[in-house]
Amino acid sequence: MQLQAMTQVSPDLVPGYSDRFKRQVEFLLEIDRLKHTLRQTILLDRSRRENSAEHSWHIAVAAAVFCEYAAADDVDLGRVIRMLLLHDLVEIDAGDTYCYDPHAGADQHEREQSAAERIFELLPVDQARDFRSLWDEFESAGSPEARYAHAMDRFQAFLHNYFTQGQVWRQHRIRRHQVLERMQPVARGAPLVWAYVRTLIDDAVRKGYLAP
Amino acid sequence: MQLQAMTQVSPDLVPGYSDRFKRQVEFLLEIDRLKHTLRQTILLDRSRRENSAEHSWHIAVAAAVFCEYAAADDVDLGRVIRMLLLHDLVEIDAGDTYCYDPHAGADQHEREQSAAERIFELLPVDQARDFRSLWDEFESAGSPEARYAHAMDRFQAFLHNYFTQGQVWRQHRIRRHQVLERMQPVARGAPLVWAYVRTLIDDAVRKGYLAP
Repeated sequence: MQLQAMTQVSPDLVPGYSDRFKRQVEFLLEIDRLKHTLRQTILLDRSRRENSAEHSWHIAVAAAVFCEYAAADDVDLGRVIRMLLLHDLVEIDAGDTYCYDPHAGADQHEREQSAAERIFELLPVDQARDFRSLWDEFESAGSPEARYAHAMDRFQAFLHNYFTQGQVWRQHRIRRHQVLERMQPVARGAPLVWAYVRTLIDDAVRKGYLAP
Repeated sequence: MQLQAMTQVSPDLVPGYSDRFKRQVEFLLEIDRLKHTLRQTILLDRSRRENSAEHSWHIAVAAAVFCEYAAADDVDLGRVIRMLLLHDLVEIDAGDTYCYDPHAGADQHEREQSAAERIFELLPVDQARDFRSLWDEFESAGSPEARYAHAMDRFQAFLHNYFTQGQVWRQHRIRRHQVLERMQPVARGAPLVWAYVRTLIDDAVRKGYLAP
């Protein structure tokens, strides 16, 4: 249960009474809440579930490390990283939707659209537009940058599942074909990484981390 | 207490038996541990301490939002963000050092240098060199990008202290002059943000969040 945080910025303490600056501070305070959104994924030592803020950090670093494997040449890494830093902000309102839960997925799109509207519009108009457009680009996978960003998002979660011996897969009785389908963005966005994922999926089935 | 995580990558499962790819995956698994490094800072709803991974995410977003206030024109935001994503990785080995603890600070430099060596050298040579050089640049505050990055690092922590009514300041009996000194990187790296910080420091003293 989330407690109430104090996130109102007094206009009379802001330099030059700037509404722009006030909005920027309020946005920064608001997004602290992403640290409370828990994913299904667990940390590698299995001590707890991962939250969406630390997940966003992890995949932003992953994007820098694996950039040479992006499907397209000359992917703009700065853009990929900004996309990944922002891509989960909607979960502040919409929560994390477990990818293998067909019911939760039903109204996910609507919930996330409303969330994007509320959260990005905390910012000054020009920044709201820029951030929202990065988020839309990610959502629609409409650019090489967005497709590579998706690949990293899926790859990190996959590694956590494999390297915790499929603890979450086993708990939810996930099967091989589901993971293969879920990992298609890796195939599209980072083909060599996909070769690794496919090998680990077979190995996971062999070792009993994942149902055949 | 950190549990043992399984982070050995089998070379025979890696595409083309690539040592490069294996190292990249091992680095990505290793840095998951930053999610266990707890800072003195608490979340805005005061429910728990912040970890260094989610902190790194938060300040990377802050850098994007406040970029127009950087002291230097034309700061390379991509470089700032990569610096901020990596700047705390040394804490995996060295832990978080509380900024107002003079004893903990004594061997901090040495501990962090050894940590940087071990952690970045998990990567392939060229990436180890690039990441290390970003970290060195941040540490020495040797560029406009590094100075702006420092400003964001300090500013976010400051906001958390102010907007939790100085809970951590009060607990450690921190005084005005200590915070003023600690916030000097904000003055250097983002002057308008510094004007705001100075106003909030006075307000914090007035409200009893911070000792005079």
